[in-house]
Amino acid sequence: MSTRIGIIGASGYTGCELMRLLSCRSDIQLTAITSRQYAGTAVNSIFPSLHAFQDLKFMAPDLEAIASMTDLLFTAVPHKTAMEVIPFFIEQGKRVIDLSADFRIRDRQVYEEWYQPHSAPEYLETAVYGLPELYREKIATAKLVANPGCYPTSSILPLAPLLKRNLIDKDFIIIDSKSGTSGAGRGASVATLFCEVNEGFKAYKIGKHRHTPEIEQELSAARGERVNITFTPHLVPMNRGILSTIYARTSAGTGTETILSALRQFYRDAPFVRILEEGVFPNVQQVRGSNYCDIGAQVDENGQMVMVSVIDNLTKGASGQAIQNMNIMLGIPETTGIDMPALYP
Amino acid sequence: MSTRIGIIGASGYTGCELMRLLSCRSDIQLTAITSRQYAGTAVNSIFPSLHAFQDLKFMAPDLEAIASMTDLLFTAVPHKTAMEVIPFFIEQGKRVIDLSADFRIRDRQVYEEWYQPHSAPEYLETAVYGLPELYREKIATAKLVANPGCYPTSSILPLAPLLKRNLIDKDFIIIDSKSGTSGAGRGASVATLFCEVNEGFKAYKIGKHRHTPEIEQELSAARGERVNITFTPHLVPMNRGILSTIYARTSAGTGTETILSALRQFYRDAPFVRILEEGVFPNVQQVRGSNYCDIGAQVDENGQMVMVSVIDNLTKGASGQAIQNMNIMLGIPETTGIDMPALYP
Amino acid sequence: MSTRIGIIGASGYTGCELMRLLSCRSDIQLTAITSRQYAGTAVNSIFPSLHAFQDLKFMAPDLEAIASMTDLLFTAVPHKTAMEVIPFFIEQGKRVIDLSADFRIRDRQVYEEWYQPHSAPEYLETAVYGLPELYREKIATAKLVANPGCYPTSSILPLAPLLKRNLIDKDFIIIDSKSGTSGAGRGASVATLFCEVNEGFKAYKIGKHRHTPEIEQELSAARGERVNITFTPHLVPMNRGILSTIYARTSAGTGTETILSALRQFYRDAPFVRILEEGVFPNVQQVRGSNYCDIGAQVDENGQMVMVSVIDNLTKGASGQAIQNMNIMLGIPETTGIDMPALYP
Amino acid sequence: MSTRIGIIGASGYTGCELMRLLSCRSDIQLTAITSRQYAGTAVNSIFPSLHAFQDLKFMAPDLEAIASMTDLLFTAVPHKTAMEVIPFFIEQGKRVIDLSADFRIRDRQVYEEWYQPHSAPEYLETAVYGLPELYREKIATAKLVANPGCYPTSSILPLAPLLKRNLIDKDFIIIDSKSGTSGAGRGASVATLFCEVNEGFKAYKIGKHRHTPEIEQELSAARGERVNITFTPHLVPMNRGILSTIYARTSAGTGTETILSALRQFYRDAPFVRILEEGVFPNVQQVRGSNYCDIGAQVDENGQMVMVSVIDNLTKGASGQAIQNMNIMLGIPETTGIDMPALYP
Repeated sequence: MSTRIGIIGASGYTGCELMRLLSCRSDIQLTAITSRQYAGTAVNSIFPSLHAFQDLKFMAPDLEAIASMTDLLFTAVPHKTAMEVIPFFIEQGKRVIDLSADFRIRDRQVYEEWYQPHSAPEYLETAVYGLPELYREKIATAKLVANPGCYPTSSILPLAPLLKRNLIDKDFIIIDSKSGTSGAGRGASVATLFCEVNEGFKAYKIGKHRHTPEIEQELSAARGERVNITFTPHLVPMNRGILSTIYARTSAGTGTETILSALRQFYRDAPFVRILEEGVFPNVQQVRGSNYCDIGAQVDENGQMVMVSVIDNLTKGASGQAIQNMNIMLGIPETTGIDMPALYP
Repeated sequence: MSTRIGIIGASGYTGCELMRLLSCRSDIQLTAITSRQYAGTAVNSIFPSLHAFQDLKFMAPDLEAIASMTDLLFTAVPHKTAMEVIPFFIEQGKRVIDLSADFRIRDRQVYEEWYQPHSAPEYLETAVYGLPELYREKIATAKLVANPGCYPTSSILPLAPLLKRNLIDKDFIIIDSKSGTSGAGRGASVATLFCEVNEGFKAYKIGKHRHTPEIEQELSAARGERVNITFTPHLVPMNRGILSTIYARTSAGTGTETILSALRQFYRDAPFVRILEEGVFPNVQQVRGSNYCDIGAQVDENGQMVMVSVIDNLTKGASGQAIQNMNIMLGIPETTGIDMPALYP
Repeated sequence: MSTRIGIIGASGYTGCELMRLLSCRSDIQLTAITSRQYAGTAVNSIFPSLHAFQDLKFMAPDLEAIASMTDLLFTAVPHKTAMEVIPFFIEQGKRVIDLSADFRIRDRQVYEEWYQPHSAPEYLETAVYGLPELYREKIATAKLVANPGCYPTSSILPLAPLLKRNLIDKDFIIIDSKSGTSGAGRGASVATLFCEVNEGFKAYKIGKHRHTPEIEQELSAARGERVNITFTPHLVPMNRGILSTIYARTSAGTGTETILSALRQFYRDAPFVRILEEGVFPNVQQVRGSNYCDIGAQVDENGQMVMVSVIDNLTKGASGQAIQNMNIMLGIPETTGIDMPALYP
Repeated sequence: MSTRIGIIGASGYTGCELMRLLSCRSDIQLTAITSRQYAGTAVNSIFPSLHAFQDLKFMAPDLEAIASMTDLLFTAVPHKTAMEVIPFFIEQGKRVIDLSADFRIRDRQVYEEWYQPHSAPEYLETAVYGLPELYREKIATAKLVANPGCYPTSSILPLAPLLKRNLIDKDFIIIDSKSGTSGAGRGASVATLFCEVNEGFKAYKIGKHRHTPEIEQELSAARGERVNITFTPHLVPMNRGILSTIYARTSAGTGTETILSALRQFYRDAPFVRILEEGVFPNVQQVRGSNYCDIGAQVDENGQMVMVSVIDNLTKGASGQAIQNMNIMLGIPETTGIDMPALYP
């Protein structure tokens, strides 16, 4: 019997992306799609791109009803709302993949410093950080997977192997990230109106973006000691994609080839991480709509490393990675349903 | 002494465009800039592009205070709000250029059918439709100028001369218009979010757009009998610009050269209308940020005419034209302060 | 044994789109990918979006070698080149799907008037126009399929059923089409540089576009008598998508519901044509990267019909439709490998 | 009598921008506009945005003829071509503002290492680097002004005052720049086609961009000792604008306010540099089409500074700055003709 899947909070871009990627699959079954705002409305009428795929209607988030209709849930609601609904599903024996930030930060104090008081701290310890390339085995048996943020995915994948192997200095790591606008969500706001973004470019939340502690947590775990970063996100006039330009000092004698080899070695069994040839750097175009993370790197004669990674923020940076986690949890091939190439041009 | 200018409702794109175009002028003085939402805030902090130009703060719309500070007012508020504030200013002896639709439709019944009940119908008759190329003399002495809509400007300029001279059939006129997104305003809404517009293209309000009666009014006036049109607006993923592709049947023997000559003749003294050579059609890029309307036309062997006009919807389609009207009202050269070329690329 | 597929001229956008759609399939095998320009180069190095999918190299177009390696060929070369290579493959018993215009026009004289002398006129008669919704049965057994143009696909699908059933007047049909820039191909040119297209909008080739006779041929075939159209293409600052706004006069008594019913009835077994509800019109966003054609229509009180169709010009307008044709030729389900939803946002 | 101006190589974006900014001025006269490619063609037919402003035709670059028609020249030709024509004009007593890189690098050896052999090294010493905020007095009397590159302008303006005053560490300066596509010029190329840039984002020429030595030259001059930088340019899907995110270590005790004060102090008489309030960072939208450079900065608790600057690459980054230099050379107010606000949205 096919697994019954629910999506809580499916009216945003990550919800729609989950449906896009799940809608063609015959091995799972979408049984509950919720949205307070659109309850009772056909999914197709809000997302006409899904016409012919989904006959479902958005339903109100009635937790008991949803629990009875599903085996595994994706929660695509805002942080704070996530921690209010997830414990119920876990207690009902459901498995949950949470796309919010609520269970990504293992240290409650850090979470509360950057977000707000945590109402379900008892799950912080058992939740598994859902970056399959680092935590594949734990994800396989997890009850609750905390799906990583988009900027963290684009930053941790290139940096963690290098920190683990002491190839770069843990200080002075700079992550200069550029994201497409879908990362800001589908809520009405002046700042993300077409005319405010198009033909524009800006940095935002300098020194204050909430993905900072998430990146630092995982880089510190990789290094085995505290790692601090300087992280600056920017808004790009495009729909999808994150490119992170990462600067770090290499340890003595570490050149481009050492860096690229270490990455290739670390990701030799990771189907979604592609390490590029020396001298080649990626464009976000080459991962649009796909689940890949492509990485290029170069070290100059002074030992300064420049590394560039690209992902699609909605796919590998959110919903595609969530499905990758689901596949692992269900014990089926990790690439099932998310192994298509990018949409170019 | 320089004319004191007020802008009522200056927090939107047309308000900002008025300030962009007026801010460098020494012959007028911006004395009152209002915004309910931003009252007390520096104009520069909302519109940093005006930094170094405007030291003004947005003020609350206190009508009496504003009247005492100004000689001439631009009202850039939504329709309905416009007719609530304009009578007061007129009664105080101020001259008003209204960028809303409230005084464009001379027939109250038509207005009320497409909009809502009119609270100041006594001004409908005396308001002058502010298309300088058609009503320059009346504008010069008007108390209240109803600044045309963007789509109407792009449609009436190419069509009115041809209808006046009976060069085209008054039936079966089709206006297929394409507008940049700034025409939708600066209010928060899902439909005009970057990701909803970018890489998209759609028609909207088919058969129902409120600019239809405005276009029909002026085309009927030009022809001297009732003219009906089919008007379809579309949304283009760009900030500024309207391109209208206009289809009509020419009268017997009317070819391309006749059409172009008639237009050239009609606009020989109009500094902002440029009629292109035979075989040449305009791109909205060539008028971006400028007050020009460029027109190309062609008639095929079956007598079917295709005409293409372009304007910048915020400039000739709104604020630039409003300033052109102001110049005429003040008896100064029509092109003052709005005679710069387009910003390309 | 899986069918061996060749792509002649694979370095453009339609070639890349064919590879995107074919690269994940296990039932066929890409065995020959040609490009004069890139011969000897890895496909991945030109199209990094295909990294991990294709180990093939571009090869020079050695016809004999290719014939020995393939069962079915897609020709994605420019017109004129197509008719020079296709006869050889047909004579070798290969089946060919030609994405150029060389075999679309059945009347040699018309072809030569709009293009150039035809060097293989003997195939004009037997080539099948590859619009599956109209010619599915003939395609199934065809040796040579002439894959339709992008604008024709977006125009013929909405209009043919209405002309067949005499629901609209055959005169005064206006097709106002708007295309994304990928339709202009991947060749270096000033006119399609980013800065020349972005923040711009223009009509082009007014009255002269070569898709005109192709549309007229199929509409005339549907009607059973000569149909002439007025066709105006426009360039939209987006990568993919065509939206055609179509104007026609309905026959007496034909309203919106009649039109929509006729379309629904005609396409009841067509998996890729979706007729929208009354009052709903499509956005190109809802078909991006997919093989769908979505159609909305409305008739006003004067009997003027406005119809809007959308396709992705590279998918249903080119490579997706070519694969749909291939599926039909191979006797497998028409939707194989092209049944995914659109990429939104 | 008004100064007679020539533009050598006016068919690109910087040439067009010069004409846009000069075309409305009555104090100068455009007398010679050259283009090999378009010789004999009306300027308006290539740049229709200039219609109604320029009756000139492009002429072939006949140096003697041009010298006889002009007093001051802008050379907007590629590097290498510039050094071939400029000596002639200088010898004829003309003053020259060169928009190429040929006279920016004072050290011939460095120039030849990054570019090619220099054919007019005797002018390297006397050419003045045309950044008015640093070299205003020298520019006033210069015969030959080397107009700065776009990335250097966006990098040197924020960094030079801080290096001069020893507020930041001279090592580990990272300049992560993002440029609109007009910076790549108007030549046909696949890499800058609309579909290759739109919905894409990439870094390019990592560690190899020719603006690196230019930036290092001026930062070293400011500091009084050798300064090396890490510079990474990126391509943004927009027409105009450069945003540079700059990372440096501050010296002990230097906080945000110290940095901002130092900048404000340094630029107190510079009309085109605007230092933003603490906590405010600029968007390229606020300088589009204008000659401003806006700068924001912040220092975190660890002494890591993040600074963001924006310019329009065609205006302050090229043609606007060239006109600013011309104004200074002519002894007229520096802001003449370039003091308009940005075009927003």
